[in-house]
Amino acid sequence: QVQAQKEIILKNFNVEINFVAIANSSHMILDQLISDSAIASLIAKDESCQASNVESTIDYLATTPANLKVLIDCTASDHIPDLYSSCFESGISVITANKKGLSGPLSRYKDIMRSATDNKQTFLYETTAGAALPFIKSIKDLIISGDQIEEIEGVFSGTLSYLFNSYNGSVPFSKIVTDARNQGYTEPDPRDDLSGMDVARKLVILARELGLMIEVNNVEIENLVNEAHRDLSIESYLKEIVNDDAAIEDKLNQAIKDNKVLRYVAQLDHNGKASVKLDTLNNDHPFSELVGTENIIKFKTKRYSEYPLVHKGPGAGPEVTASGIFGDLFTLFNIH
Amino acid sequence: QVQAQKEIILKNFNVEINFVAIANSSHMILDQLISDSAIASLIAKDESCQASNVESTIDYLATTPANLKVLIDCTASDHIPDLYSSCFESGISVITANKKGLSGPLSRYKDIMRSATDNKQTFLYETTAGAALPFIKSIKDLIISGDQIEEIEGVFSGTLSYLFNSYNGSVPFSKIVTDARNQGYTEPDPRDDLSGMDVARKLVILARELGLMIEVNNVEIENLVNEAHRDLSIESYLKEIVNDDAAIEDKLNQAIKDNKVLRYVAQLDHNGKASVKLDTLNNDHPFSELVGTENIIKFKTKRYSEYPLVHKGPGAGPEVTASGIFGDLFTLFNIH
Repeated sequence: QVQAQKEIILKNFNVEINFVAIANSSHMILDQLISDSAIASLIAKDESCQASNVESTIDYLATTPANLKVLIDCTASDHIPDLYSSCFESGISVITANKKGLSGPLSRYKDIMRSATDNKQTFLYETTAGAALPFIKSIKDLIISGDQIEEIEGVFSGTLSYLFNSYNGSVPFSKIVTDARNQGYTEPDPRDDLSGMDVARKLVILARELGLMIEVNNVEIENLVNEAHRDLSIESYLKEIVNDDAAIEDKLNQAIKDNKVLRYVAQLDHNGKASVKLDTLNNDHPFSELVGTENIIKFKTKRYSEYPLVHKGPGAGPEVTASGIFGDLFTLFNIH
Repeated sequence: QVQAQKEIILKNFNVEINFVAIANSSHMILDQLISDSAIASLIAKDESCQASNVESTIDYLATTPANLKVLIDCTASDHIPDLYSSCFESGISVITANKKGLSGPLSRYKDIMRSATDNKQTFLYETTAGAALPFIKSIKDLIISGDQIEEIEGVFSGTLSYLFNSYNGSVPFSKIVTDARNQGYTEPDPRDDLSGMDVARKLVILARELGLMIEVNNVEIENLVNEAHRDLSIESYLKEIVNDDAAIEDKLNQAIKDNKVLRYVAQLDHNGKASVKLDTLNNDHPFSELVGTENIIKFKTKRYSEYPLVHKGPGAGPEVTASGIFGDLFTLFNIH
């Protein structure tokens, strides 16, 4: 996307974008002018590329002259967030889709935020919750304009949204999960989604944005993985998962009997009370009409009290996430 | 709101805000340091205030030293937009909630936009459509990131949303309109809402944002005011309006029979085809669940193709509009 929009951005905003370093988990390229063919070699994991090393990428960025430098972290690495502070110290801004730095230990979170402020560098992370949907931006806008957020509620996982929007009893839940996994809709280990941990991390990011300094272990999490299956290998788990069908089918049947639907819902109030859980909602509840991988967020605030502020749309997927990253990049240009 | 947040903004963003000119339709104050008591005199239309004059307000702003100057136009005046260009030429940015400059003659619109660009001044207008809901910002973000908007659809009038969300046949439509007028939910002349002109203006603003250079008279408008009643005085109209009840009741009864609802819907496609009309929608259509004065916008784009991007919430009212203006002010600080 950035490559495709380079000329438009140069023309309309007089900003020239250059990739000087690009890497995936195994390979990287450090070059003043990275060409489309170099990107193709990287994707092909060609021998012309060096082995990936984030530290040397940051060193290279730090010593390369430019008006504005940015590291874009699209990994799920727990290590790279430890390097954000050294980016800020070297005059590099950071844009991230990686939830680990923001939802991990509070002390690291505070160090990252303090380092960005102290070094006057920009740190943007809209895509860590809701992909390109304006979850983070809405919170910033509401707070800066003096509104008070009383409650946040939503469906924050494209994967869990898809699973429960699809599950109507005609096909066993385990089959929906394994089919979704085969189509790449879940993590390679579906327990990463079903554990509720991904949703809890997003809720922690939003809570901290509200100034509520909670940790993931302060979130009441309903883990949808049977306790006996949590430590199995992926292969064994995928065999065992059919044994969980009866329990979830009971829940669905009860919900259907009550004219309700199952949705995996995240909730946060202004006291920091946070939970992520499989909820049974009325058929006419706004979350009941979600389709596909749609995410939704509902803000109840001092001003939006009677009727909440709602954003809805696909909250996952490479295209919309890339467009969210792009939005952050655009914000960065605007600030500088 | 700005007054209440001044200290927080000074502390967090190191930006000091001063009001140097403030005016309503009849009175104004021009002073380097406007106090809360001066604002009270203005509201009271006290003798200590001068008679309102926009030209001299702009002159005063132009000659007052400051790092960043902004004129905020919250009027519905057709005259003030003619002065935006002279603001830009004098180094004054403009934030507006006034639809007239943006939806009026295309030549004036282009002059305003060109003048803002030529003089490197910022022109922001998020609240001209959807109050604080991110209608304009979403279009900018989608386009800059290289997405293509194929269709926009929504309910863009808080007043018409309220009227049709309330109208279920138990009370005549004319009574809902006059009650709403008495509570200040409609314009003093409800025909300004019922004519569809307000919605058409908003649609023109959004269309131009997409690069579709249409005029209000290119919009197919369904005027809900009986032709015979369009030229009456307000008083006579409010007496005559009961005679329109039968026609709208027929429409409602037909809709109820078909399990449908009535909603005043705005539509725009990427060829510039634009319409605003009273539509009958299925009971399970997302617009059918609107309540109160809620607005909704649905973007169908190249990326958001299967499932649209949706923003919903109160799209009218002084508090949310003020918070939208505040958002623009915050964007202005960020840019500079």
